[in-house]
Amino acid sequence: MRSGKLVIAQGGGPTAVINQSLVGAVLEARFYRQIEGVYGARYGVRGIVNEDFVDLSAETRADLEAVAATPSSALGSTRDKPDLDYCRNILASLKAHGTAWFLYIGGNDTAETVRIVSEEAAKSGYDLRCVHVPKTIDNDLMESDHAPGFPSAARFVAQAFMGADLDNRSLPGVYLAVVMGRDAGFLTAASAAARTVEGDGPHLIYLPERAFDQIKFLSEVKSVHDRFGRCVIAVSEGIHDAKGVPLSVKRAGTMEKDAHGNVQLSGTGALADLLGQVIKSELGIKRVRADTFGYLQRSFAGCTSDVDRREAREVGEFAVKQAIWGTGNGSVAIRRTGDYAVDYALVTLDKVAGKTKVMADAFIAPSGSDVTPAFRDYLRPLLGLGLAQAARLRGVAIEKVLKR
Amino acid sequence: MRSGKLVIAQGGGPTAVINQSLVGAVLEARFYRQIEGVYGARYGVRGIVNEDFVDLSAETRADLEAVAATPSSALGSTRDKPDLDYCRNILASLKAHGTAWFLYIGGNDTAETVRIVSEEAAKSGYDLRCVHVPKTIDNDLMESDHAPGFPSAARFVAQAFMGADLDNRSLPGVYLAVVMGRDAGFLTAASAAARTVEGDGPHLIYLPERAFDQIKFLSEVKSVHDRFGRCVIAVSEGIHDAKGVPLSVKRAGTMEKDAHGNVQLSGTGALADLLGQVIKSELGIKRVRADTFGYLQRSFAGCTSDVDRREAREVGEFAVKQAIWGTGNGSVAIRRTGDYAVDYALVTLDKVAGKTKVMADAFIAPSGSDVTPAFRDYLRPLLGLGLAQAARLRGVAIEKVLKR
Repeated sequence: MRSGKLVIAQGGGPTAVINQSLVGAVLEARFYRQIEGVYGARYGVRGIVNEDFVDLSAETRADLEAVAATPSSALGSTRDKPDLDYCRNILASLKAHGTAWFLYIGGNDTAETVRIVSEEAAKSGYDLRCVHVPKTIDNDLMESDHAPGFPSAARFVAQAFMGADLDNRSLPGVYLAVVMGRDAGFLTAASAAARTVEGDGPHLIYLPERAFDQIKFLSEVKSVHDRFGRCVIAVSEGIHDAKGVPLSVKRAGTMEKDAHGNVQLSGTGALADLLGQVIKSELGIKRVRADTFGYLQRSFAGCTSDVDRREAREVGEFAVKQAIWGTGNGSVAIRRTGDYAVDYALVTLDKVAGKTKVMADAFIAPSGSDVTPAFRDYLRPLLGLGLAQAARLRGVAIEKVLKR
Repeated sequence: MRSGKLVIAQGGGPTAVINQSLVGAVLEARFYRQIEGVYGARYGVRGIVNEDFVDLSAETRADLEAVAATPSSALGSTRDKPDLDYCRNILASLKAHGTAWFLYIGGNDTAETVRIVSEEAAKSGYDLRCVHVPKTIDNDLMESDHAPGFPSAARFVAQAFMGADLDNRSLPGVYLAVVMGRDAGFLTAASAAARTVEGDGPHLIYLPERAFDQIKFLSEVKSVHDRFGRCVIAVSEGIHDAKGVPLSVKRAGTMEKDAHGNVQLSGTGALADLLGQVIKSELGIKRVRADTFGYLQRSFAGCTSDVDRREAREVGEFAVKQAIWGTGNGSVAIRRTGDYAVDYALVTLDKVAGKTKVMADAFIAPSGSDVTPAFRDYLRPLLGLGLAQAARLRGVAIEKVLKR
């Protein structure tokens, strides 16, 4: 029987429920006699290379449950994208600590690291079972109906747009907010869940799955504003022109890039301000407000989906079960089996590693600036119980006396 | 016995609980036989002048309760700051509709409108009872311990910084967020409620009550970053230099101004981006992220304080009781009478109208870039039940094998 340590780490951008997966895995792992210790690597794979491990066997159950309910990676995370040498250093550290199981919670880049480490272990004849545990607010993982972390971020975005739309309704004008999502528009599209009745915003939704055309954009904003006297707009940070050049890059000159070669899109209000200025100057609308949801949408404390919490817990637990009882390395995938129920599966790492899923055409309205009812049906069960509801006065008008 | 219509309106920026006050007033008003109709003016006093009234007597109780739980002014709001002529038009419309009671929910500018209207009514010998019902996320009303709307906005800011701090802890660097509050720093100061243990952010808090000095700012950011390897900063949108010139104005050239002559500070990420750039260029710190909380902090659906909901409801109900049974016009004030309990009082309009309360010196740390324990004691009971709590792994370290 395989025995040794189980090492777990968290990579990439945090989510509001990523610690559910950590705790789901840790609590499950502690049941198995053959697991001689549950180690957490601090700051992702960087912590493995640096042997920066904490003993998760020593954490109390009460504290683990409190951590599970806390947003953002409790072990710390990393944006490092390991190359082959880096992965060999990871493996050397895992070997030195007698690791038999390696779990890494993250997105498609994280899956790629797991894939390389598992291949290097096999090549060197080291018996290491490697499982990728999914998370990403972008919802861009292949093979899964959706990714843990997305439902809670979607709930935040929906509730944010609901409030912003009510705000804009009371003080009319144009309101625009930029939502995270470089290549996949799922999170921006979730803004559609803010609508209840005809006329509710967001009235326009711009996704990275469609080329952004400023002339069409301005024409659509004007049309909504002419009709309702106001306009609420959701914009993905990743919108780009027909050649694929992000709008933010076109205007921004030198941009910060991360280790993956991606331009920094978040943590700045530049794109929102740019679009707000264009609307002001080109359409002559006076009251234009442009927000950028920034880091709140992935780490806000106190706005998670119960469905997301439960599933994030389950993928962690399932990953350990697969690592112990399963027959190979892999990535945990979520499969929708009903309306609404899910099953979990272990798929081979190459199917997920480094790949990006974007929104299906069936989810995007023909106009290119809205979602379809099919997307709303897909999203609805993910948002969970107790989603805020916008109510309104029925507003029976009183007859005028002076101006009748 | 005075009899006639009761007209109610909402003015200024919305809050997450302003409809509690509306509904508190409407439900109470509908009990009195001498109130011959409860009218809501759409878009504040502009709706009065335009005779844009809806019949709140006709709204069902169930819908009113649902509206009470919905953020942002259900009747619509206005930024109009009426002069004497405007106020005479308000009065003419109120008279034409047989109004005996006028309630206006808003901040200190709203109170000023109520004051002028009440004086004009008295001068013209028209028997009109006028009551200002307080609301403002800025918490800057004189005579009150705090203003309805502030506790919920403070809860949002606290939970947002809690999440942002956890995010920054997992991917270290500098995180800065700009919070609403032109002259009063209460809402920015509320970020301090995000902290649990030593080392938690926000590490630095910059308020409009103290002159902003960029050299001191950079030195403090550097000091925190050197110590913790990261730094989380809360900045009020109203920070200004020793001469009172807002930082945003110094850099921004021509700025949009509202009817009150105030420069637009919200709805743009410019200040956050500016400060982020300064930190990057002057301190050479690579990972700097700058958010602007924008409109979410005053209208986010699903993050209110139960204390705030209850008190906002009570000030509306209390205003009607005072209008019916009281002896004069006035503004409703909240008085803290215990730890924690409140009483309500009607104070004369001139004590609140057009005046601004700022943070007491006792609430601001000698450093000028933090709050005191006295402020945290003041804030704590306002935030309500079920505030998110940040938990952390205790993190017992595993001994190194390779690098010991």
